[in-house]
Amino acid sequence: MKRRREFAIDISDHVLAPSRKSNKKIIASIQYLSKLFIMPDTPDKFIEFGDALLVMIRDFFQEEGGIHSAISLPDLAGLFAETDPPTDPELITDVLYEIKEKIIRHSVKVGNPYYVGHMTSAIPYFMILIEMIIAALNQNQVKIETAKASTFVEREFLAWMHQLVFRRGTAFYRRTIQNPEIALGNVAVDGTLANLTALWVAREKAFPPRRSFGGVRKEGMAAALAHYGFSSAVVLVSGLAHYSLDKSMDVLGLGSRSLIRIPVNADNQIDCTKLRRKINTLQKKNAKIIAIVGIAGTTETGNIDDLKQLRDIADTCGAHYHVDAAWGGATLLTHRYRHLLDGIDRADSVTIDTHKLFYTPMSMGLVLFRDERDLMRVKYSASYVIRTSSVDQGRFTLEGSRKFDVLKPWASLKVLGTDGFQILFDHAFTLTADLNKIITASANFEVMNTPQLFIHVFRFVPRDLQDVLENLRAANDKTAATGKMQEINSLLNELNVELHRAIRAEDSTFVSRTTLKNTRYAPQPIVVLRSVTVNPLTTRAILEEIIAKQEKMGLSLYSRKYRKRFEKHMA
Amino acid sequence: MKRRREFAIDISDHVLAPSRKSNKKIIASIQYLSKLFIMPDTPDKFIEFGDALLVMIRDFFQEEGGIHSAISLPDLAGLFAETDPPTDPELITDVLYEIKEKIIRHSVKVGNPYYVGHMTSAIPYFMILIEMIIAALNQNQVKIETAKASTFVEREFLAWMHQLVFRRGTAFYRRTIQNPEIALGNVAVDGTLANLTALWVAREKAFPPRRSFGGVRKEGMAAALAHYGFSSAVVLVSGLAHYSLDKSMDVLGLGSRSLIRIPVNADNQIDCTKLRRKINTLQKKNAKIIAIVGIAGTTETGNIDDLKQLRDIADTCGAHYHVDAAWGGATLLTHRYRHLLDGIDRADSVTIDTHKLFYTPMSMGLVLFRDERDLMRVKYSASYVIRTSSVDQGRFTLEGSRKFDVLKPWASLKVLGTDGFQILFDHAFTLTADLNKIITASANFEVMNTPQLFIHVFRFVPRDLQDVLENLRAANDKTAATGKMQEINSLLNELNVELHRAIRAEDSTFVSRTTLKNTRYAPQPIVVLRSVTVNPLTTRAILEEIIAKQEKMGLSLYSRKYRKRFEKHMA
Repeated sequence: MKRRREFAIDISDHVLAPSRKSNKKIIASIQYLSKLFIMPDTPDKFIEFGDALLVMIRDFFQEEGGIHSAISLPDLAGLFAETDPPTDPELITDVLYEIKEKIIRHSVKVGNPYYVGHMTSAIPYFMILIEMIIAALNQNQVKIETAKASTFVEREFLAWMHQLVFRRGTAFYRRTIQNPEIALGNVAVDGTLANLTALWVAREKAFPPRRSFGGVRKEGMAAALAHYGFSSAVVLVSGLAHYSLDKSMDVLGLGSRSLIRIPVNADNQIDCTKLRRKINTLQKKNAKIIAIVGIAGTTETGNIDDLKQLRDIADTCGAHYHVDAAWGGATLLTHRYRHLLDGIDRADSVTIDTHKLFYTPMSMGLVLFRDERDLMRVKYSASYVIRTSSVDQGRFTLEGSRKFDVLKPWASLKVLGTDGFQILFDHAFTLTADLNKIITASANFEVMNTPQLFIHVFRFVPRDLQDVLENLRAANDKTAATGKMQEINSLLNELNVELHRAIRAEDSTFVSRTTLKNTRYAPQPIVVLRSVTVNPLTTRAILEEIIAKQEKMGLSLYSRKYRKRFEKHMA
Repeated sequence: MKRRREFAIDISDHVLAPSRKSNKKIIASIQYLSKLFIMPDTPDKFIEFGDALLVMIRDFFQEEGGIHSAISLPDLAGLFAETDPPTDPELITDVLYEIKEKIIRHSVKVGNPYYVGHMTSAIPYFMILIEMIIAALNQNQVKIETAKASTFVEREFLAWMHQLVFRRGTAFYRRTIQNPEIALGNVAVDGTLANLTALWVAREKAFPPRRSFGGVRKEGMAAALAHYGFSSAVVLVSGLAHYSLDKSMDVLGLGSRSLIRIPVNADNQIDCTKLRRKINTLQKKNAKIIAIVGIAGTTETGNIDDLKQLRDIADTCGAHYHVDAAWGGATLLTHRYRHLLDGIDRADSVTIDTHKLFYTPMSMGLVLFRDERDLMRVKYSASYVIRTSSVDQGRFTLEGSRKFDVLKPWASLKVLGTDGFQILFDHAFTLTADLNKIITASANFEVMNTPQLFIHVFRFVPRDLQDVLENLRAANDKTAATGKMQEINSLLNELNVELHRAIRAEDSTFVSRTTLKNTRYAPQPIVVLRSVTVNPLTTRAILEEIIAKQEKMGLSLYSRKYRKRFEKHMA
């Protein structure tokens, strides 16, 4: 396979950067079409267009300008309002031109270092190339007949992750890593499906086959409750749980009402005392506790529940113990930070997303099970695809056809190494601490949480009002003070919503926005800005610029529109 | 944006075709790592590696040799048996080398024109490039803040597909195509999740909110049956339904036992008389019929149910009517073949997979709803991601984070046009007819179905035995004949399993294998070979070669090992 060559490509502008549609009419024929398919006589076209695209993508990343395109949503909608599917074939260059002008130009630059508002961040550029390999191989992970090496890559990666989470010892992994009789977990399309899979297994563990009863999978929820003599079946989790858990309860026929949300403490962690009390009440009502869910990195605030204590609580009621570490799971890659998730090795199942802190492109989740027999409970087979004796990964997954997504984190871990992740997280922790200092130092922001995993919530509060709020919180006449405080907070909510709109419109920086109920002003819902600082390209200087800009916008909005409305509260 | 340039790249062999690991030690630092992320100072590396990869992928497709790699599964397992995640960073070229040697080399060549065994086939080469764009943009379709133009592309594509299926008229699509209050359907990760979504909606339609009852989504299945006073809730479908429907019933808390499979007729279509009778029985038992599911292209035989009649039957019992057109849906793109799916426009929901007959890479499904209000029944919102007033596509999807997959079929439809698909399907229909003639002409195969959509099932039966079986089927003494026939078929089953193994081992051609219960030998399960002939690169000459080779292998196996065992039946 050794060879050496030079090759020069003349990339004339219609290919390199198509500047107009050719509108060339194509006469389609099977000869023309089959040349578009992968075959020995199209390699040069493939490389020619590939090069053009590489340049186009590079240009996208080098482009100066806003984070979001300035186009309005109605105008953008107008670009994609052709109600009929295209009938005539078009040249690939023409379609690439259209993609460039209509789509790439109006995409969100989620990798921009000034975009610190969502968990979607920059990705290493080689990830883009790996996607090309995945598409070219086009393996279908559902069965070995369409996924040969890729089946084994998937199992290897799952073993790595299982070891990081559960640390079951080298002998265990030697025995299980490529043993098709054993499933350590699933690659899922995202964290939602990973959580859903975990609760699916938990449901089956709660209502397994017994005597004449075939198990809840076969017989359904109504029969399961009747057979086991329970009035209901519930899952308990903190009030900050991701909405995928509500959706999972709904889908599983348990009912979203059966997801019991327990209040959080001042650090946004589930209140274990209240949890124990609730379990007690539920058991008296003859409810079956299917699962307790801990969170390792809440979506809104990045906080981590007391994962050890939750294990003990789950044991008292015989519940499956799941940890949603979609956000925080990747910190297990590092020696320095894995202690933050202490106790996670005692969970029964764990969700991790790789498109978050593994810095791989959209989207891939993992669900891992400590007990290697758990996932077998939801095994399927079919004569035409996954025979019972098979080694097919599709036996356990909720999804059917599934691409070779796992190559991305597998390759990424090799290129970066766990040492590399340590450095990335060092940087993210430093950034988060820097941002904390910057917000605190700035006179016109109020910090609303103590960040654990890279997420800040804060809000714009003009300096004068901060004193007013402070005094009200210290006041003796609580009733009067609370009323006043609520009025001020309502107005501040309005102000922060409008500030967020202004930030979006100005478009050189981006933070997200949410509404929290568990702040020092509870139970009043408080509108907050939310930052996620994990992009390796973001620096302290950039954070200073972001906050300075947003503060300036806040102050301008305040003096133009809000100062007057606040006046009566300043007296 | 106009420009013109030449650029020459010296691709020295360590990049172009890495022939060994460099084992170069890397000192990781944030400076080193951030250069791996997309940023203005790495573009040349990006293009350099991109070029190397393009060449590597081209080589993969030009490589001669078998379809599957010859390596044994245990040996392959040995290549991926490292139980510890990598700690030290490696050079990208080293990782690419490893991917080439360990993964690409041992992947299944699903695009090979001699691989006619599964629905996974060749893809147009520009699809590989489109995947690069998707990864580079890294949009997250869950919300507009991470998916600007891509949200609108998704809606446009959904409208095209909705129109192809439901033909609700231009005025309807003008009004709905980009109206965020309306959802015509979802992009799902595959057909399994599309089917699951359809049944999720059907379940909610069967048990909606009423008075004090909050709907099955909130209250769960047990409460729903109790409130509405039904003994059970069922879905009816043909015996050839895909196993994703069993899985969906399980997951939805309805129980896989509540998927009632109705026998099929001689053409592998659901027997509507038996269906009506079963509905009657179920209603007498006070069961709620949630949905009737029709199939447009069964996985095993490619046959299509009587879609018109199923609508009428669903109406008689007030059931949601879903059509699983994961396989056959794409034929709606053509004037010539859409009549095969007559009646599909009257379905309530339809599943289509794009990684099948849209020839896009793994994996993407669609679920479309005729009534634009149906999907709203399962809407979710969360304050931090999808606010209630939002235009976010994530409101209706089962999945959370989701990549911009829809760019693939959107671009593919533009490059190929519906005219192009017409030609591709002409080719596939011709291939299927050709194969039918070839198998029929060959003396030693028995055709087991009348193909409707590109799928043949057949088996190897030595000529002499065909006569014996024929005589037995015509015999007067049915009991004796049946017994004898069963013995012969058992032996033929064994022979065909072994022949399939031999085909796999020889590895220059590929068909799949399954077991059918509904053949002329019913109820005895019959092992059959199964071909899927949709690859534009496959020709009649190739099919002749495939069948000749497999026949030869069959005959050799027969004379070596089976003739003796059959002898007593030949008397």
